[in-house]
Amino acid sequence: MSRGYRVALVGATGAVGREMLRILGERSFPIASLRLLASARSAGRRLTFAGEEIEVAEATPGSFEDLDLAVFDTPDEVALDLVPEAARRCVVVDKSTAFRMRDDVPLVVPEVNPEAARAHHGIVANPNCTMVTMLMPLAPLHRTAGCRRVVASSYQSVSGAGGPGVEDLYEQLEKLIPERDAVRRGSVEGLVGPGRAFRHPIAFNAIPHVGGFDDTGRTSEERRFAQETCKILDAAIDIFATCVRVPTVVGHAISAWVEFERPLGVEEARAAIAAAPGVALEDDPAAARYPTPLLAAGEDKAFVGRIRRDPANERALGFFSACDNLRKGAALNAVQVAELLVAEGLV
Amino acid sequence: MSRGYRVALVGATGAVGREMLRILGERSFPIASLRLLASARSAGRRLTFAGEEIEVAEATPGSFEDLDLAVFDTPDEVALDLVPEAARRCVVVDKSTAFRMRDDVPLVVPEVNPEAARAHHGIVANPNCTMVTMLMPLAPLHRTAGCRRVVASSYQSVSGAGGPGVEDLYEQLEKLIPERDAVRRGSVEGLVGPGRAFRHPIAFNAIPHVGGFDDTGRTSEERRFAQETCKILDAAIDIFATCVRVPTVVGHAISAWVEFERPLGVEEARAAIAAAPGVALEDDPAAARYPTPLLAAGEDKAFVGRIRRDPANERALGFFSACDNLRKGAALNAVQVAELLVAEGLV
Repeated sequence: MSRGYRVALVGATGAVGREMLRILGERSFPIASLRLLASARSAGRRLTFAGEEIEVAEATPGSFEDLDLAVFDTPDEVALDLVPEAARRCVVVDKSTAFRMRDDVPLVVPEVNPEAARAHHGIVANPNCTMVTMLMPLAPLHRTAGCRRVVASSYQSVSGAGGPGVEDLYEQLEKLIPERDAVRRGSVEGLVGPGRAFRHPIAFNAIPHVGGFDDTGRTSEERRFAQETCKILDAAIDIFATCVRVPTVVGHAISAWVEFERPLGVEEARAAIAAAPGVALEDDPAAARYPTPLLAAGEDKAFVGRIRRDPANERALGFFSACDNLRKGAALNAVQVAELLVAEGLV
Repeated sequence: MSRGYRVALVGATGAVGREMLRILGERSFPIASLRLLASARSAGRRLTFAGEEIEVAEATPGSFEDLDLAVFDTPDEVALDLVPEAARRCVVVDKSTAFRMRDDVPLVVPEVNPEAARAHHGIVANPNCTMVTMLMPLAPLHRTAGCRRVVASSYQSVSGAGGPGVEDLYEQLEKLIPERDAVRRGSVEGLVGPGRAFRHPIAFNAIPHVGGFDDTGRTSEERRFAQETCKILDAAIDIFATCVRVPTVVGHAISAWVEFERPLGVEEARAAIAAAPGVALEDDPAAARYPTPLLAAGEDKAFVGRIRRDPANERALGFFSACDNLRKGAALNAVQVAELLVAEGLV
């Protein structure tokens, strides 16, 4: 390993953790030493980085000595335990939801609000992968014409629920594909229960339930979607979101209607997006070009298309966007935040 | 066959046609004689109704002598040819889009605007199956508090694209299930082309393209969704729709945000829906009860749930609805229209 930073990856064996490891290698992040940490269950496994095998150790409060940077992708309860410990010894880039809305923790998408990272006190948080899918096109539109209101509905892949979500979808499909009449009649039994990722079958279905419900009937995913967009872009934006799981494996998509402070034409919106980093315009309906989850899968950018005027409201536009929820929605953003911290001397 | 009406079913061999045949039997529609018609390709096939085998004949301009009622489920170009011929001899209930927006053709959902049928001049049209999914809950809410604006995104099943849509999904799933890495990376080739129902793979994907695009970037499905809702409910409602195909087999779903003329509470909205015919409240988030396409599949009612306030707008609510697009969205509504015509002496 070359000269650089002493880095720990916490949650290294999960889907996002492994993607992060791959991206750190792809982008030649300057690493002097790399410590891979995970739960006791995964400790002892060996992962390869830059041609070397590294044994995964158990993450404990004592795991963070002699580090410059720790990147966390763990469940919230683990982050709540270990991130403050780590942040006393090094800078933490955290993927969990636990610290995102704290006033002293910047929530950063490097293409959108890199300046926020300067105010960190040891922790920099990463946003929700669904919100990022909308944020990437929304940010340049907001800078152009001032976004005031958003109504958004999501099409979220099962990998957003982790490995168990992916396994549930494949297992359910294997069972249901031979049962065409049962699917036709909705007579589908025995696919959910304890240990399952979803409360209803996800194969051949769409489930408007991501996260937990609060007293107002909103899910935690929908609340975060709104709160995190406001924290990053502008607290004055009103956002109404409906988050829905669909039987896709990778790639979240968003259908958005946005009202601006002033009329914004389709061509002006396209130009703003084409000039923005991290987002790609895919918008030629006549040639059947528009974003889909499979188009975004494996890609680093968020894709946006179906940009069109609301015929009833000259200040409103619709768009459809898609983004790889494991890359830009998760692992890539965390690595980009780490790169930003290094570039700005914030580690 | 018992005493009753002389009925023809045109497009009898299609998915909706066969569903219509089943529903006519289930609901004991008063049939004196039943003529099954289809394209030349399907002529000669035999279908069973009420224990009798009936041979399917080719639908031609001469097929409509000695009839009281003809129910059409055909492509638009066939409807344009044959519906006017049939309407000179009997009353036509038409499922196509060809006549829906004509001023002299009522567009009828029996639970919502039965009175419109009285003004028919030989043709009664049925609405789009996607729009019906939203209309069933929207109609009682509109009567309660006056709906002014709607932003809706759809989750539409492949059976909405007919038999070829269903076959494409199953065939693509069989091919892609063993190719997990390719799906993960979005490297999916060779699944689309001439003769396919969709322009992009639909397995593990979501495609924001239903129908054809117009110059403004809107699809024909999105235009109809708005126009037909206005024709049935109120021309003053502004509707912005995004129609998206997802890998479900049966059951369309809608995520809707609705602004009313006055504040409308969640409980008042629930009461209005619970009292309305043809729609079922499925709205207990704490028990994970909300509509899904699989819940609606095989059922006659539209289901609605996730009813919640927009925290930023006291006059706005969100809901999520689902409906079997082959039954209430298509075949059942046509049979209900026929029943209405009979009950009101309009045949």
